[in-house]
Amino acid sequence: MKKVFKEIPGAVVAPRGFTASGVFCDIKRLGTGKGSNKGPKRDLALIVSECAATVAGMFTTNQVCAAPVKICVPRVKKGAARAVVINSGNANACTGKQGMKDAADMVLFTELALNVPRGSVLVGSTGRIGVTLPMDEVRAGIIEAAVELGSTPAHADHAVEAIMTSDSRPKQIAIEFKLAGKTVCLGGMCKGAGMIQPGMSATGARPAALPHGGLHATMLGFITTDAAIPAKVLQAALEQAVAQSFNRITVDGDMSTNDTVLVLANGMAGHGKLSAADRATFQAALNHVCLELAKKIVRDGEGVHRVVTVKVSGAKSVKEADQAARAVANSALVKTSWHGGDPNWGRIIDALGYSAATIVEEQVDIGYAASGSKKILWSLKRGQPTKATYAALCAAAAPKEFDLHINLNLGSASAVMYAADLTEEYVEFNKGDVTDPTTLGG
Amino acid sequence: MKKVFKEIPGAVVAPRGFTASGVFCDIKRLGTGKGSNKGPKRDLALIVSECAATVAGMFTTNQVCAAPVKICVPRVKKGAARAVVINSGNANACTGKQGMKDAADMVLFTELALNVPRGSVLVGSTGRIGVTLPMDEVRAGIIEAAVELGSTPAHADHAVEAIMTSDSRPKQIAIEFKLAGKTVCLGGMCKGAGMIQPGMSATGARPAALPHGGLHATMLGFITTDAAIPAKVLQAALEQAVAQSFNRITVDGDMSTNDTVLVLANGMAGHGKLSAADRATFQAALNHVCLELAKKIVRDGEGVHRVVTVKVSGAKSVKEADQAARAVANSALVKTSWHGGDPNWGRIIDALGYSAATIVEEQVDIGYAASGSKKILWSLKRGQPTKATYAALCAAAAPKEFDLHINLNLGSASAVMYAADLTEEYVEFNKGDVTDPTTLGG
Repeated sequence: MKKVFKEIPGAVVAPRGFTASGVFCDIKRLGTGKGSNKGPKRDLALIVSECAATVAGMFTTNQVCAAPVKICVPRVKKGAARAVVINSGNANACTGKQGMKDAADMVLFTELALNVPRGSVLVGSTGRIGVTLPMDEVRAGIIEAAVELGSTPAHADHAVEAIMTSDSRPKQIAIEFKLAGKTVCLGGMCKGAGMIQPGMSATGARPAALPHGGLHATMLGFITTDAAIPAKVLQAALEQAVAQSFNRITVDGDMSTNDTVLVLANGMAGHGKLSAADRATFQAALNHVCLELAKKIVRDGEGVHRVVTVKVSGAKSVKEADQAARAVANSALVKTSWHGGDPNWGRIIDALGYSAATIVEEQVDIGYAASGSKKILWSLKRGQPTKATYAALCAAAAPKEFDLHINLNLGSASAVMYAADLTEEYVEFNKGDVTDPTTLGG
Repeated sequence: MKKVFKEIPGAVVAPRGFTASGVFCDIKRLGTGKGSNKGPKRDLALIVSECAATVAGMFTTNQVCAAPVKICVPRVKKGAARAVVINSGNANACTGKQGMKDAADMVLFTELALNVPRGSVLVGSTGRIGVTLPMDEVRAGIIEAAVELGSTPAHADHAVEAIMTSDSRPKQIAIEFKLAGKTVCLGGMCKGAGMIQPGMSATGARPAALPHGGLHATMLGFITTDAAIPAKVLQAALEQAVAQSFNRITVDGDMSTNDTVLVLANGMAGHGKLSAADRATFQAALNHVCLELAKKIVRDGEGVHRVVTVKVSGAKSVKEADQAARAVANSALVKTSWHGGDPNWGRIIDALGYSAATIVEEQVDIGYAASGSKKILWSLKRGQPTKATYAALCAAAAPKEFDLHINLNLGSASAVMYAADLTEEYVEFNKGDVTDPTTLGG
């Protein structure tokens, strides 16, 4: 049974006790040609809880990991936070000792500006790699953002705009639901459009189960709630939610140096002790928010025309189901055929065949369905083309979103990937123009 | 010391005792809309040795493997062959029992038409997946090709044209060199433009060392020589040569169901017993032919504007060097930056960071050099940007071919990948047009 949650306005400021702001402080170096000026103008955001919150986080497993990630990992481990400062236009990645100093100064300056305890501010950055932050501008931005803080939906809008890079539109959500008799809110915002195939873990260390060899544009996600959730419980809940959402999307198969998801829970809903059913409800709500945000990233991926949910079942193990789904979701030939609306099962079975998953050609089923529908039009059954007409298959592969069902018929494990097509616009956008450095991405 | 070999005309018919032909028998279904009519008109080729030849072969490790590959593997194991029949326009892959019968009929019919012993003909196919061969046309083509056989360079030209699919130009070579006092020839031809990241082994079984998760358009390579090389020696020599050439190229990271390389050695040069030095010369010659053919595939890759030789050194192991090189060579963001001529080391170090290879950000060197030059312009040294100007780096990344040097500074292992950029033309070509099935690729 899938829980349906009521959406409400306000995103990250919908939960009680949270304020936010987003300002322009010229980190994007608009017009100077020195930075990345993609996306909208605002480039520094704050999210603040009026009281101490518990915190959980998930971080890129890229071995090249940005300074803000290195600052956050030990802070999140302590389990408490008050605020997050985020900038776009500069990833503060591959910036060496100066980058670490800048990230540390950024959180310290924010702590002073907000008058919150030392160690209670977290930080996220996204944008060009390998360039140090313009710290004078960052400090001016923090001061202005602290002044601008507020809890109207417009404040959330400013904050989400300030974390966008190549995103074409803001991505945010808020829902409300009952927990121990009280109304509780979960709000969230995220960014990301290219360099998208996150593989995050709690510590940035790479567990054996995470995918190698294909993940990247930074994705950042920030979630707030007025539920009261102990830090350890919150971390476990976030790990489960991210495993089913942000870690299951791919735009271009490149994993970023900066991928970060944070959740702050300030307990201001004032509910009592949670029952097992309440904890399950919170988990379902967090799963829902993370999945909706993750899907928004794929839909708004650089140059993306079509979003395909790749559903692999019948694999020998979950790991193999994941490997099969990622091989299909990241194949250049499969992705260009999606762009063309071509129901080309030859390219799909080819990708399955070179994946690390065990497959047997004579067992493979491949079919198409409308998003979420169980009515599947099979193009291949047990390795043999079905009698489905080419016109019918083309119609099934034509919508802007559809489900691709792959049954390996070798076991009972399954995995899902939310994937994007590969278009001329993606290439055009990412090749940039070397004569105009402002067009060059992270 | 690199041996320089003298190039001569004639390609696969340059060695004594070999004839070839290429004809059109409508496997490509030109104008009918029922097949793949990409590439030039000819679609069936023969290569024939006038006497028994030893043979060696390497085949796709894709778990979905085409009928012609399944026919060839046991035949090559026996070590002797007389001829190869090859068709384009139809891969005879994912065609079930009918496909196996068709491939078996194709070699049997060729054996009868050429009056050569049963079991002495090998077969290769390339083109659309999942469609059975038009066998009446194939038989007519074999008869005509048998009649047309000859040993002029024009015959080799017809043969190589007949194996092309999305290739924009023929790819062939012949060289001569001395072996045990006699002049010996090695000739070769190949095809391939997309679905290119071969990972071939002698049996099609996947050794642990081969890359997973990214390989595909079929590549086919056929090599002839009048040297006398025992089958086991020839197989070992081919395995070494392919490991350094065809298995080190990538256009789009997709491995095909049909990748095949065959070598026939008929001994007609009439040389005596080979010394160790002679065997080394033969190995060097075979390495040279395979590498030149492999590079031609990357240069002629679908939509390819730039070819980049990714040279990873200082890795902890050869496996890790390979993983690092493939991550960079197959990153959508790195490949689009190459297309743009953007010396974007941020995307390169990001790809290294998410690869399965161990890397330490503070140790990584990244630089550019003219093809084969040892004069490297470093953009990053030990993780820090150098003082090289952006203009100088752009100039280094501007040529149609250049070397990308990556030193991980963690060990002494190295690996090379011959890679291509990712362009709008690649996407345009591979998305096809569902309203015109003749535009849809394999």
